[in-house]
Amino acid sequence: MAKIKVAKNGTKRDAITQKGAGLFRKKGFAASSMRELADSVGVEASSLYNHIGSKSEILRSICFTVANRFTSQLNEVEQVSQDAVGKLENLIRFHIQMMLENFDEVYVANHEWKQLEEPYLSNFLSQRKAYENRLADIIRDGISKGSIKDINPHVVVLIILSAVRGLEFWQRNKKNISESELVEQMVSHLLNGITK
Amino acid sequence: MAKIKVAKNGTKRDAITQKGAGLFRKKGFAASSMRELADSVGVEASSLYNHIGSKSEILRSICFTVANRFTSQLNEVEQVSQDAVGKLENLIRFHIQMMLENFDEVYVANHEWKQLEEPYLSNFLSQRKAYENRLADIIRDGISKGSIKDINPHVVVLIILSAVRGLEFWQRNKKNISESELVEQMVSHLLNGITK
Repeated sequence: MAKIKVAKNGTKRDAITQKGAGLFRKKGFAASSMRELADSVGVEASSLYNHIGSKSEILRSICFTVANRFTSQLNEVEQVSQDAVGKLENLIRFHIQMMLENFDEVYVANHEWKQLEEPYLSNFLSQRKAYENRLADIIRDGISKGSIKDINPHVVVLIILSAVRGLEFWQRNKKNISESELVEQMVSHLLNGITK
Repeated sequence: MAKIKVAKNGTKRDAITQKGAGLFRKKGFAASSMRELADSVGVEASSLYNHIGSKSEILRSICFTVANRFTSQLNEVEQVSQDAVGKLENLIRFHIQMMLENFDEVYVANHEWKQLEEPYLSNFLSQRKAYENRLADIIRDGISKGSIKDINPHVVVLIILSAVRGLEFWQRNKKNISESELVEQMVSHLLNGITK
């Protein structure tokens, strides 16, 4: 599936953003310097500014690209004629895939969004809230149609999003299990817990 | 249930540690100063040092107190003659309770442990790994006795620990649900997903 990572035809700006994600994940946004970023891209610090305005701009680009990917997937899933459990399964798989394939970017969006400047910070938070509310709507629909147990949709959203986010510990410290086994068991645990 | 928080008969040192947990959670360990801590305790910065050696010592105390609480609970649970599902339920409830009642301390132990100095850093990590392995053993026992589905115990541990940890988002942004409802639904979702 499509990765956020820069393709062969990606621009210099994309390459900088990608290296920035790796750097921000490892060192944190605040502790990362444009100089270190230039080193990891392999250019002079001054030439970075031909492609990107500031460190903040890189963070913003990472956070909003990740947010867009999740929102696009949700848009698609909402359009599909599938029951609520199928929709949730699709989204859980997408979250896991994003964590595994675009780990740096998703990690940075999860951990460093606080460093966004206004108006981007408020905008990012309201997008996230809207995303969670739409997930809750899918669960609510499943409950009303009888495929999902009568539980608080926001608790389910919290558990699902936290569990997939927990893959960041997995990434750091891989256990003896294949990626596909991990995905299947995670989907199964999370869905069996709520389906009737 | 017992909170980590300082009781009426707590020492000045306990009070400092508690305020430190609140400060480190809000500002992060690196960005917190002893001066701010003194302000929040209501003493002169110089007098803090009558009770505590350094900022690092406070972090260490928080992380190891939290680790001890979880390990003690696990020790008790392992001794009880209860099946694996019952043991897991007990531990999930304990994790949720710790998140809700000792939020600052658990949050700091979860997020700021990287700032521990050696030998404490390695020690903390090996304790955490041992804890996770013992949880996996309980799940493995449940699988072998037929009460838990045949799934990878480490995936289950990851999902459970991530989900309860996700309560930090809940704490920040409370939804319209009671604490007891939250606990029951979380336990039910997490256990129904793996029991036969």
